[in-house]
Amino acid sequence: MNYRMIFYNIGRFLLVESALLMIPAVMSLINNDGAFMAFVITIAALTLTGFVAAVKKPQNNNIYAKDGYVIVSMTWILMSLFGALPFVISGYIPSFTDAFFETVSGFTTTGSTILRDIEIIPKSLLFWRSFTHWIGGMGILVFVIAVMPKTESTSMHIMKAEVPGPTVGKLVSKLRASARILYGIYCVMTILQIIMLVIGGMPLFDSVVNSFATAGTGGFGILNNSIEGYNSLYSEMVIAVFMLLFGINFNLYYMMIIRHGKQALKSEELHWYLGIVTASVLIIAIALMTTDYTAGESFRYAFFQVASIITTTGFSTANFDLWPVICKIVLVLLMFVGACAGSTGGGIKVSRLILLIKGGRRDIRKAINPRSVETVKLDRVSVNEQIVRSVSVFFGMYMIVIAASALLLAIDGHDIVTTITAVIACVGNIGPGLAEVGPAGNFADFSVFSKLVLCFDMLAGRLELIPMLMLFSPYAWSRKYS
Amino acid sequence: MNYRMIFYNIGRFLLVESALLMIPAVMSLINNDGAFMAFVITIAALTLTGFVAAVKKPQNNNIYAKDGYVIVSMTWILMSLFGALPFVISGYIPSFTDAFFETVSGFTTTGSTILRDIEIIPKSLLFWRSFTHWIGGMGILVFVIAVMPKTESTSMHIMKAEVPGPTVGKLVSKLRASARILYGIYCVMTILQIIMLVIGGMPLFDSVVNSFATAGTGGFGILNNSIEGYNSLYSEMVIAVFMLLFGINFNLYYMMIIRHGKQALKSEELHWYLGIVTASVLIIAIALMTTDYTAGESFRYAFFQVASIITTTGFSTANFDLWPVICKIVLVLLMFVGACAGSTGGGIKVSRLILLIKGGRRDIRKAINPRSVETVKLDRVSVNEQIVRSVSVFFGMYMIVIAASALLLAIDGHDIVTTITAVIACVGNIGPGLAEVGPAGNFADFSVFSKLVLCFDMLAGRLELIPMLMLFSPYAWSRKYS
Repeated sequence: MNYRMIFYNIGRFLLVESALLMIPAVMSLINNDGAFMAFVITIAALTLTGFVAAVKKPQNNNIYAKDGYVIVSMTWILMSLFGALPFVISGYIPSFTDAFFETVSGFTTTGSTILRDIEIIPKSLLFWRSFTHWIGGMGILVFVIAVMPKTESTSMHIMKAEVPGPTVGKLVSKLRASARILYGIYCVMTILQIIMLVIGGMPLFDSVVNSFATAGTGGFGILNNSIEGYNSLYSEMVIAVFMLLFGINFNLYYMMIIRHGKQALKSEELHWYLGIVTASVLIIAIALMTTDYTAGESFRYAFFQVASIITTTGFSTANFDLWPVICKIVLVLLMFVGACAGSTGGGIKVSRLILLIKGGRRDIRKAINPRSVETVKLDRVSVNEQIVRSVSVFFGMYMIVIAASALLLAIDGHDIVTTITAVIACVGNIGPGLAEVGPAGNFADFSVFSKLVLCFDMLAGRLELIPMLMLFSPYAWSRKYS
Repeated sequence: MNYRMIFYNIGRFLLVESALLMIPAVMSLINNDGAFMAFVITIAALTLTGFVAAVKKPQNNNIYAKDGYVIVSMTWILMSLFGALPFVISGYIPSFTDAFFETVSGFTTTGSTILRDIEIIPKSLLFWRSFTHWIGGMGILVFVIAVMPKTESTSMHIMKAEVPGPTVGKLVSKLRASARILYGIYCVMTILQIIMLVIGGMPLFDSVVNSFATAGTGGFGILNNSIEGYNSLYSEMVIAVFMLLFGINFNLYYMMIIRHGKQALKSEELHWYLGIVTASVLIIAIALMTTDYTAGESFRYAFFQVASIITTTGFSTANFDLWPVICKIVLVLLMFVGACAGSTGGGIKVSRLILLIKGGRRDIRKAINPRSVETVKLDRVSVNEQIVRSVSVFFGMYMIVIAASALLLAIDGHDIVTTITAVIACVGNIGPGLAEVGPAGNFADFSVFSKLVLCFDMLAGRLELIPMLMLFSPYAWSRKYS
């Protein structure tokens, strides 16, 4: 391992975080909400640590794939540790574990909260809380690649470890250029959403933070009952549509920009994604009509909740924990499905699911006709066998992480639905689960140990397992391969 | 497809079933329990159908792989349809769907029941109900291969479709010989268990049917509260140990017989299996000690239940639905794990799990060190890449079947734990789930549609997906490949 290079990179990322913290710090100073010193201390700590780590540019620029993973996992962990400080120092989240949980939940765009009462938190802290969603959505490191003056050979490894999906999209040959395009699209869409929400009468501050949470598919709300609190059909629909838009592979937007719109619209993943959304909305809406809801209300709640869960945002406009069981099962299944690869959403990703199903179909055909030659195709192109295999293995690892975490969480003794959906919601970066961690609940009642397990799960889900699982691999730590 | 060959084979299998039904028919005649005519009518129907289908030996002996799957899936479905008749005609299970469910549950060695009161059923019917476990345990078609005078080229395809596990063990070069050895071991072990139960004071009839249910890892009890009703530590321990023994790959017993015992004991799957059992017993026993149970009771109940669930038998000596949540989560995870390949147990199978975990570990190593050459090994032998891939794909299909079935079952509106564990218990051929389908409950309250979905799941689980999933594949039905 090239330790100097690792330190140098992590240091730079921490400096970026300290710069980003200036925004809420200034807000706090203007509002005089008492959190200013908490921000200043955090910025000072970050700047100091960052400078010490990054002061000397390493002479050896070579890094191994492993180093890339280490940089990614360590950066995310350290940024969350520092990012938690303003909550602790200001005294609004006195427990460091809770603050760390909240910050990890922010950066990983999960949106699970330990706060029982969100509305007593000052605006500057709420801004920072939602801002972490926006930063984490597209990726901290991708952001740095986009804004930093010079890119090193490290970038590819870093981007590979951080960008969601089975393959890294090769937008343009130059990494920095593609990182900039991604962030450009991301910014434009976020601003568009803010404007549309403001037009609908939502206060500017609320529009900004809710758009951050939508863009990152995070789901932190600033009202105790999430988006339900605005009670505005217009705002709900704007947010729902933008959630779905942020759940689409950003490469498709790029293709539209360079006038390959037709090709973009042919994307198989997009068709499946929209198909799953439509089917889920129909099932849930029909089931809701059998309850007290009118047909209009049924579609309104069904559409919002499906968009929120499949994109792994986690906003809610109703307490879906009280819905008929078929609605809950559809939502739990959507938690696994997740958004499209290359979007800001989490979960397993639609394209992986497609490859999984096609792999299964291929095996059935092979069994029927052993001599047939069958390849798995996506967008009419044969997919490399190694990717088909890796996707299935990823699915297996995903399930094993859920199983192991559920076992550890079960020590707390919460009911089985709470325990399992808490894990599913965290690994998939969704936010709420069912029962005690449903839309009306929160994650406050878990033990410190369980919260740390869930923090690991959120990071593992966001970084697509390998960077976090690697930390448990003796192979990774052996000097032989360093 | 070679239709004549398919009919001929299915016909033969139905004739075997009619012969097997003679045993309970004679019992019924002796006990004069009123079910005799029900058996006679069923035997007559089976004999007639069997003769019509098998009367003419086909001239063309060639069959395709696909034909093997069709024979297997159709035979299992038809045997269950006919096997349900005695329950319906005798009037003890008036609904045909219920009787079909009970028979599928029997043959697939699931052990889920729709009976609210088992103890009012006459002995001859209870014998038939448990006998289906014993027949289904080792496989109806393997049985036929073993006892029929001549084996055709069909046998390999059939055995491949019916024997559990990722690979068919090549015991000896001759299929018929190996089928006989398997059944020989199976019979000897069953008789051994009967003797040991009788020694402990269990009535002969109970010893026989409980041994049938143990040998097939089925789990139908003949008391309303399963094995708990005997309240005998000795019987519980005998049954628990035999459940574990029947959950081991039968190839290992064969290896012991031919004096390769040392090699058999080195089996990696065996080590994992015993390791998982030990760890699970420890976790559950410790958790139970925090309740009202004594240390002794905790270990007694934990050992029995772990043995019962991992082998997918499904007997119970306590209502584990009332245990601490960590116990329930361990048991649900064991439902997925299942027994060893080549045993009579269901579930995903330990060896598949090993390959899944090793495949994951390999992918992590590959990510750390992209240039490394890593193969997945089992018992120190490199496993073919295609098997590693198929195992992961199998896992994915298994989960998709569970997800789709849970969605269909959810229409009934039972609670989420009942809905999901009912499916897991049926696909894994376990028997009881949690909540309403827990050890104290039964499957009676599901709708006809849900019961049929669960019948499909039981068959899909027992036949390891492909023979049943194939029925939905347009590819399989296209003439092009017939």
